[in-house]
Amino acid sequence: MFFDAHLDLLKAAAEANRTRAAWTGYAPITPPDVEQADAFVGAYDGATLQLSSSTRTVITADEVSPYTGKALDVGYSAPSADEALAGAAGAAAALRDAGIESRVGVCLEALHRIHRRGDEFAAATSHTTGQSLGMACSGSGTNALDRGLEAVAMAWAAMNRVPESVEWQQTFGRSEVKLRKRFRPRPLGTALVVACASFPAWNAYPAILANLATGNPVLVKPHPRSVLATALAVGVIREVLTEAGLPADSVQLVVDTTDDPVAARLATDPAVRIVDFTGSPTFGTWLERNVQDALVFTETAGVNTVILDSVGDLSATMRTLAGGLSLFSGQMCTTPQNIYIPDGGVRTDAGVVSRDEVVAALTSAIEDIATAPRRAAAVCGALQSDATLQSIDALADRAEADGTLIRRAAPYEHPDHPQARVVTPLLIRVDPRRGDALPAGEQFGPVAFVIDCADRESAVEHATATIRSHGAISSYLYSTDDAAVDAVADAYADAGASLSVNLVSSMPMQYAAAYSDYHVTGLNPAGNATLTDESFVAGRFRMVQDRRQVEA
Amino acid sequence: MFFDAHLDLLKAAAEANRTRAAWTGYAPITPPDVEQADAFVGAYDGATLQLSSSTRTVITADEVSPYTGKALDVGYSAPSADEALAGAAGAAAALRDAGIESRVGVCLEALHRIHRRGDEFAAATSHTTGQSLGMACSGSGTNALDRGLEAVAMAWAAMNRVPESVEWQQTFGRSEVKLRKRFRPRPLGTALVVACASFPAWNAYPAILANLATGNPVLVKPHPRSVLATALAVGVIREVLTEAGLPADSVQLVVDTTDDPVAARLATDPAVRIVDFTGSPTFGTWLERNVQDALVFTETAGVNTVILDSVGDLSATMRTLAGGLSLFSGQMCTTPQNIYIPDGGVRTDAGVVSRDEVVAALTSAIEDIATAPRRAAAVCGALQSDATLQSIDALADRAEADGTLIRRAAPYEHPDHPQARVVTPLLIRVDPRRGDALPAGEQFGPVAFVIDCADRESAVEHATATIRSHGAISSYLYSTDDAAVDAVADAYADAGASLSVNLVSSMPMQYAAAYSDYHVTGLNPAGNATLTDESFVAGRFRMVQDRRQVEA
Repeated sequence: MFFDAHLDLLKAAAEANRTRAAWTGYAPITPPDVEQADAFVGAYDGATLQLSSSTRTVITADEVSPYTGKALDVGYSAPSADEALAGAAGAAAALRDAGIESRVGVCLEALHRIHRRGDEFAAATSHTTGQSLGMACSGSGTNALDRGLEAVAMAWAAMNRVPESVEWQQTFGRSEVKLRKRFRPRPLGTALVVACASFPAWNAYPAILANLATGNPVLVKPHPRSVLATALAVGVIREVLTEAGLPADSVQLVVDTTDDPVAARLATDPAVRIVDFTGSPTFGTWLERNVQDALVFTETAGVNTVILDSVGDLSATMRTLAGGLSLFSGQMCTTPQNIYIPDGGVRTDAGVVSRDEVVAALTSAIEDIATAPRRAAAVCGALQSDATLQSIDALADRAEADGTLIRRAAPYEHPDHPQARVVTPLLIRVDPRRGDALPAGEQFGPVAFVIDCADRESAVEHATATIRSHGAISSYLYSTDDAAVDAVADAYADAGASLSVNLVSSMPMQYAAAYSDYHVTGLNPAGNATLTDESFVAGRFRMVQDRRQVEA
Repeated sequence: MFFDAHLDLLKAAAEANRTRAAWTGYAPITPPDVEQADAFVGAYDGATLQLSSSTRTVITADEVSPYTGKALDVGYSAPSADEALAGAAGAAAALRDAGIESRVGVCLEALHRIHRRGDEFAAATSHTTGQSLGMACSGSGTNALDRGLEAVAMAWAAMNRVPESVEWQQTFGRSEVKLRKRFRPRPLGTALVVACASFPAWNAYPAILANLATGNPVLVKPHPRSVLATALAVGVIREVLTEAGLPADSVQLVVDTTDDPVAARLATDPAVRIVDFTGSPTFGTWLERNVQDALVFTETAGVNTVILDSVGDLSATMRTLAGGLSLFSGQMCTTPQNIYIPDGGVRTDAGVVSRDEVVAALTSAIEDIATAPRRAAAVCGALQSDATLQSIDALADRAEADGTLIRRAAPYEHPDHPQARVVTPLLIRVDPRRGDALPAGEQFGPVAFVIDCADRESAVEHATATIRSHGAISSYLYSTDDAAVDAVADAYADAGASLSVNLVSSMPMQYAAAYSDYHVTGLNPAGNATLTDESFVAGRFRMVQDRRQVEA
């Protein structure tokens, strides 16, 4: 029933995956106002969300709003690893036997209902992750729903490429042998999806739904300090599963604490056959190395580079770049970090601009955002974690001592939440040629390093070496020289990185479009899971066949 | 050039993959006669095959013909792990940049040339693996070529499903943003293919060619006692690569010795990103557990069960089953091993036949093959390894002591090679209910256990438990009750196993058809690599993209 209701949407998504042209399955979500958002989240104050039937244990998660500083005080059912695995095992047969259309229908209906409650989900997202309400409606709203739909459509298309049956006939010796063959897709087994604290929906929806569509029971483990939005999504899926006559425990929420984490225990259990992880490179690498004989999909982090070679309009470019550094306070895996400026400066339509002037223009563009409270709030949101604030401050102190500090990550004035944990970009300027320290790997949060370099070629060389060592998720180039763009795109491709060129517009530079932009190449250390290529879905199901002789 | 020449063939193969109907890309190969075969192999006596440019080391492999007992005395270039990896790294960029059609063309032309030299390849296969010349022309000839073509077509289709570019346009705020995006498939990295001793081509061709088609340099490591046929194939591919202007070292042969094996060293090197292994469950499991952050494809072994419930013509059924047990002396991963017969006997069109009579009919059908030397030679071939002969003898001695022996694995008289290492099936009859020993896992070679069981249901229960513990590659049922067939197919599917039903014909029961039969489900312990589903090709390449703003 759900399948038929959403079939046109599904077909359109599959077609968008094929053409990779611009498309969306979901109308924009109108953000709630501040009071509505507070009310949405306040409605869960003191509540217990029972999102696994397999336990009576409840954990009140350590969730504190980055905006109000107030504890959310929501309890969640918290199955032990054994309980969660038993619950998944109990749901497996019914989910498997439900068939493709029933399961895909559940996925589509769940996306539809999450969309309908988009403002409530945005409120929960904002008060756990620190995203602004606007971003929570887009990045964690429609864009996340689109990435979820994209993965469902990819899984559906992959399963559909195998015929259900065939009459097979061949001559052996002097006789014709005719076999009737059936091909049935079967799930691999229990799946674990580990979501990150600051941007849980965008990566978790595709993993959860690709697993469900292909018939694998899912354990969803959010970050212990950012649970509510994920819990609401799991709640919607469980509700739809139940209406479809399928076990609610086909999806369970597994909540743990920072003192007693459960992800490693679950990921290494032989009963877990699929692991999807979004989070730190440290744990991602640990999973890639320690999970045996299960599919492991990781999206961690890398060093996202920007090479400034030549531009048309410097101010417009700096506005885009300042927006990119500021957006959600740099807490996105696509945020630019290392910005290369050649010794000769940047060529523009108005002549060559020196490096000092470029840095001044960038700083000024950041100040424009930082000093406009409503705009700053909409762009920067808040920091999810105190630890990020501390690491930014430590970086700034060190840079000040080194003489490399350009701009501290000063807070902006949040117009609605004076207590909000807010910052604006920290800017540090280094020259590796004179031995300035450049941190290895990603610095989480709004931290950018302006890197002095000899010229474009040396920037490419340094940047691609960084990518080979530490990975990259998004990379950026500004150059008006088409031949140079081709050469740099090749060099990045050879390092296993994609490249965005000359983005100067109202589109956030780190925007990755579902159905079109492949997110994470799998060819550098930033992770091995691509949203959404065929390798993201192909192994989640396998084929069993039977063949019966009907004539010989 | 090669691509265009074979494009029709490629398209037909892709279409066969889609419909899964019967199709072959290669005309039957006429087996050489015994003298021709000797001459083909003799031509390499004392020769050195240089199949890697990266070393001067040569190993004379320990290859002894199972038919003549004579050493082949062929030398092969034997790069160290470091040399082989350096050679692959040196070839990587050119292979990657050659593009899809150039690489796919090389694969297709290589298959074509191997086919043209089919009789010579059959001779080399026969005198290393023990396959009869007829089987070497089919199972290791056309069938292996078809499985190779199948994998190439799957890889080609997968890469083709991604468009090369798109103009992407979307509104942000009040402005239209237009991006020109390119999508380029890129190889994952150096690949290792480890082939088995008795049936190297059928599994290695798909892995080698799927890697090459997607741009990954390949190290091919045959079993140290079964090198020549694989070496000839590598030689053909290198020759075609060179003609296509690509580095010959895109494929290298890596030869080692049983005393100083190199596979584990290579498989765990961080530079190796893909491992394909066919061989023992022990090493396959070791690879699955110890290879970190690389794709691992395994095909090992399982316990292939046969349930005899009801048949039309018992004699015809027993002829098919005797043929299945005898074919290539049970040295195929699809050979039946555990045969269940219910206490009530087997229902036939001529009434119920008791278990003793069924066993007698099977034994008699085996004797029919064993006592007809030409037929026995064509069906059974020879044992690749002395170790197999020893383990069969040990099993027979134990069974004799236990009182469970039905039939010893007596040699047949080979009409052409009196020295050949030949046997016929060993039959042992056990009743697990009275505590008879039944070995865990596969017994390599022509070893069958007739298992007394209460009824069909208990047979299914016992068989599927075995599959869950030890895996299965092919499973068989004989039942004239359609409802029972459906139920048993479901039970096997739930255990992650495919099922062949009522095969009674001149088609060998263990025949698995390229383009149609999925080989290895990946859902039980017999391996994780399916010939050929999308998961076999999807991860071997990933996408890099670049996107350039063309208007805003």
